Amino acid sequence: MDIQSLLDDIAGSVTPHIGQGEVAGYIPELGAVSAGQFGISVATGDGEVFSSGDSDVPFSIQSISKVFALALVLAGDGDRIWKRVFREPSGNPFNSLVQLEHEDGIPRNPFINAGALVVTDRLLSIADNPHTAVRDLLRTESGNGSIGIDAVVAESEARNNNRNASLAHFLASCGNLDNPVEDVLDAYVSQCSLAMSCADLAVASSFLARNGLAADGSAVLSPAQTKRINAVMLTCGTYDAAGEFAYRVGLPGKSGVGGGIIAVVPNNCTICVWSPGLGRSGNSVAGVAALDEFTTRTGWSIF
Amino acid sequence: MDIQSLLDDIAGSVTPHIGQGEVAGYIPELGAVSAGQFGISVATGDGEVFSSGDSDVPFSIQSISKVFALALVLAGDGDRIWKRVFREPSGNPFNSLVQLEHEDGIPRNPFINAGALVVTDRLLSIADNPHTAVRDLLRTESGNGSIGIDAVVAESEARNNNRNASLAHFLASCGNLDNPVEDVLDAYVSQCSLAMSCADLAVASSFLARNGLAADGSAVLSPAQTKRINAVMLTCGTYDAAGEFAYRVGLPGKSGVGGGIIAVVPNNCTICVWSPGLGRSGNSVAGVAALDEFTTRTGWSIF
Amino acid sequence: MDIQSLLDDIAGSVTPHIGQGEVAGYIPELGAVSAGQFGISVATGDGEVFSSGDSDVPFSIQSISKVFALALVLAGDGDRIWKRVFREPSGNPFNSLVQLEHEDGIPRNPFINAGALVVTDRLLSIADNPHTAVRDLLRTESGNGSIGIDAVVAESEARNNNRNASLAHFLASCGNLDNPVEDVLDAYVSQCSLAMSCADLAVASSFLARNGLAADGSAVLSPAQTKRINAVMLTCGTYDAAGEFAYRVGLPGKSGVGGGIIAVVPNNCTICVWSPGLGRSGNSVAGVAALDEFTTRTGWSIF
Amino acid sequence: MDIQSLLDDIAGSVTPHIGQGEVAGYIPELGAVSAGQFGISVATGDGEVFSSGDSDVPFSIQSISKVFALALVLAGDGDRIWKRVFREPSGNPFNSLVQLEHEDGIPRNPFINAGALVVTDRLLSIADNPHTAVRDLLRTESGNGSIGIDAVVAESEARNNNRNASLAHFLASCGNLDNPVEDVLDAYVSQCSLAMSCADLAVASSFLARNGLAADGSAVLSPAQTKRINAVMLTCGTYDAAGEFAYRVGLPGKSGVGGGIIAVVPNNCTICVWSPGLGRSGNSVAGVAALDEFTTRTGWSIF
Repeated sequence: MDIQSLLDDIAGSVTPHIGQGEVAGYIPELGAVSAGQFGISVATGDGEVFSSGDSDVPFSIQSISKVFALALVLAGDGDRIWKRVFREPSGNPFNSLVQLEHEDGIPRNPFINAGALVVTDRLLSIADNPHTAVRDLLRTESGNGSIGIDAVVAESEARNNNRNASLAHFLASCGNLDNPVEDVLDAYVSQCSLAMSCADLAVASSFLARNGLAADGSAVLSPAQTKRINAVMLTCGTYDAAGEFAYRVGLPGKSGVGGGIIAVVPNNCTICVWSPGLGRSGNSVAGVAALDEFTTRTGWSIF
Repeated sequence: MDIQSLLDDIAGSVTPHIGQGEVAGYIPELGAVSAGQFGISVATGDGEVFSSGDSDVPFSIQSISKVFALALVLAGDGDRIWKRVFREPSGNPFNSLVQLEHEDGIPRNPFINAGALVVTDRLLSIADNPHTAVRDLLRTESGNGSIGIDAVVAESEARNNNRNASLAHFLASCGNLDNPVEDVLDAYVSQCSLAMSCADLAVASSFLARNGLAADGSAVLSPAQTKRINAVMLTCGTYDAAGEFAYRVGLPGKSGVGGGIIAVVPNNCTICVWSPGLGRSGNSVAGVAALDEFTTRTGWSIF
Repeated sequence: MDIQSLLDDIAGSVTPHIGQGEVAGYIPELGAVSAGQFGISVATGDGEVFSSGDSDVPFSIQSISKVFALALVLAGDGDRIWKRVFREPSGNPFNSLVQLEHEDGIPRNPFINAGALVVTDRLLSIADNPHTAVRDLLRTESGNGSIGIDAVVAESEARNNNRNASLAHFLASCGNLDNPVEDVLDAYVSQCSLAMSCADLAVASSFLARNGLAADGSAVLSPAQTKRINAVMLTCGTYDAAGEFAYRVGLPGKSGVGGGIIAVVPNNCTICVWSPGLGRSGNSVAGVAALDEFTTRTGWSIF
Repeated sequence: MDIQSLLDDIAGSVTPHIGQGEVAGYIPELGAVSAGQFGISVATGDGEVFSSGDSDVPFSIQSISKVFALALVLAGDGDRIWKRVFREPSGNPFNSLVQLEHEDGIPRNPFINAGALVVTDRLLSIADNPHTAVRDLLRTESGNGSIGIDAVVAESEARNNNRNASLAHFLASCGNLDNPVEDVLDAYVSQCSLAMSCADLAVASSFLARNGLAADGSAVLSPAQTKRINAVMLTCGTYDAAGEFAYRVGLPGKSGVGGGIIAVVPNNCTICVWSPGLGRSGNSVAGVAALDEFTTRTGWSIF
């Protein structure tokens, strides 16, 4: 498999999809990102990185950060978090309050906003440097020490955060937040506002394709924990299109409204795609198309 | 009809119901109210007041304040509020986020918490003294200038207000609040924390039985507005037990979790009952029983 | 009050509304009714009848039949039915399965289809001539012995009855039907397919304005039962627009998708309006406008 | 890997779980099955079969039949079915009407009852012998020509089928059934009432682990179709516990209320477990525990 040629092919063939959908517009800073960009990077288990398109352009990782926050909580705290958040697909849009109300404040899974707020709350309680823990993990795993928060995005998110504030106060009213609502919201916004490139994000995710091992051979997660994060990504990682993503792409994946998606081929490689135009479910249109073509041509579906 | 004898009879016959149900416990100050109390007052259209039981004990009026906030907004602003809140029964528990989410942030009616937050938001925009407007109306209409906020209750409500904060942030995320979330919550808590007796509350409500006319003959509301507030009370005034209340009592009414209920016999009188024990739907058990007996014996149902 | 002049005025002033909305189209026979018709009749408690417009044209009474089925069950069986059906507004469209599922097969009220199926089931169990009981009541109370089923409508309803069949099987699966599903559906369709004029329907409803007494002075219902049917009509009689109807019209009322509405002024009169064009909630647009004007001009709101 | 020893170990270690949960009781015939049974069989891609416990006892396959009905429709009709059924997890109990109503009669996926009724409807339209098509496929693929319907179960299912009749009538009311409701229900009940052993079911499922190839090398499905059925099994195959099953077991699987579960290790083997006691979500307690141990010890998770 000549991965470089494949990625170049894909970057060409998805061209009609680039710019399709809508760029996330709930804050002006995301809405201003040029829709005509597309990047793809593959990081293999043995450390090679292949890229095509705008793979070095940093973008707002948004909900992709939820994977790394969950990894830190599982690594530091074991299975305790599962008493406070389920791991079932939600079957509803990603910021829905409905299930939360019906299910007494236990979010459906750690990848919807409510669940990520609970994970973030736990991270605040257990991490040495809770407000930079996700950033530090991404720096270490990507090897890029300059990764940081996009301050303009973070400030705008904080100003336009009523929906997450609503969720957080609801969780608090159910007794499912230990830290003050404002602290949890601050930490959550910080994680979502991290900016990274496809290449850095593919490399930083590599431990998910290596049974939890970091590039230096140290364990970020145990093999069992890694499999389980991948399982949750498959069933819950792409909002209410998880079934569709599994059907078309056939890989565990996590998307963000910044237009990025990471996907994992266990024991093989990680892929990161990015293109800002989002489909109805909030996933990058060109990104999903690229991953579809990638697994079709490589046969690297998990099914 | 000898109203005084009737009220004394009712105060006797509801004795088995006094203490039934549960005293609202979401804040300690309400939970500490002695359940064994019951009061009833009737204010006739021509200014007489009849009372029995603990009718002079001030209690936390809580959601009964929603009627007066709505009256002030209708009086000052006409029908504009109906673009921001519906007037349909909710069919769901009174603090439900579900319908709010399904219906794009337009609350079902002004008597569920979400709707009252919108009404309060509008009151903040139009009233001369928005933070005391409801209190001032109640003082004027009752003739009791000492009516005020129970500061201990207000402070405790403010500390235990995550559910309402969740609603308010959700409304804000839908663009249905004009004022800052914190201001709306403060004003809302202030209204709910007003303390009044049955006697004062029956008198203060009299304009609802007099086609909108105050005791001094001035118009609080137009006759049409008065009829319409009464209609909304009938269909939406007793949480998700409005159908049951109409069936048993047959009068427009509004209840609060402090255990109070006001009811209106148009062109005749207002009744206020109070007993802290609440049934499953949040309405005073002994209070509903007393009103049931009142309409059964007087025949003063609107049906 | 010169009622005849008033009705003639109303028939004129609602002209712009006649033909507004959509004629019910779920069966071709209803869809074929000319939208440009409007009738209104008032039957006073002392036996006078005033009419204007197309008040002698028979129309399909549809859900208005639910009031009479409930009256028969209450008359014959007392309060037993309330163990099998609630009396709360549904807050959802009239054929909704959602609440039925959430509430274990107990319909919200007797005027949504699910509730009416349960009432019909009970009528089958207790009536001497269950399949003609509603028709017989309407004949007796209207004094028009020729009232009958529109056979073409009935046959078409039976062929297009999947939604009600779905409800009935669901009720059966919850143990809330005693008779075979097919029998209940047959009886239900028969009732809905009765055809009557405004004049006959206003007269037939008169017992609801006379504390339950029929024209001949015999009791169809007790005074308490009558008040309670009126209360259920007010809170649940006009689908998910009950709050709006109470607000605008201020009378207990029951509508049908044939375009008819009956309304009750307790101790005074009944009104029947008819015009086939329906608003979004399934109530006659011109009919509601006519009732609105009627109560505005007479002041005969119950509030 | 000595699979035989592993299965014997598992049969021993799950002993504490055998009999846990509740045997399906909605029809007496299922409720009468002895809870103390457990069987497990593995069919490898190259044709070997390993078994332990009660692996030769036929049981009612129930919803496992949905996989084979879907395979036949995809094989015969390509992707057309996806216009009539989604492929997203439902997030709700398996016979829920709620989502069906909210989503205009398009079932969430082909493995909830509503979706399977649509698949069955399509099978009736395209199969040569629609009423025996699923049975014939299972006979051919298992090599056991005696596989058939448990007539007592089928008859009892047909008599206790109100919930499915409710779903089918609802689908028909939305225009999402082409064949008469009764025919669809009959065919559906027939499929669910098939009785098979673990050994036969593991072998019959082998094409799902062989990229769609049957034992004789002919193609039941294309490789892409096979991957996609496996993807739908993973996200939707175990009712509202799909996330939990993916997390614990890490394999595509489909369960039935008879207590059976099939699971697929792509390019490797299929596993069938059976034990009648069901957990809250309707999946065999001992069966899930056995599969959990199987993937833990073999490492054959897809993640």
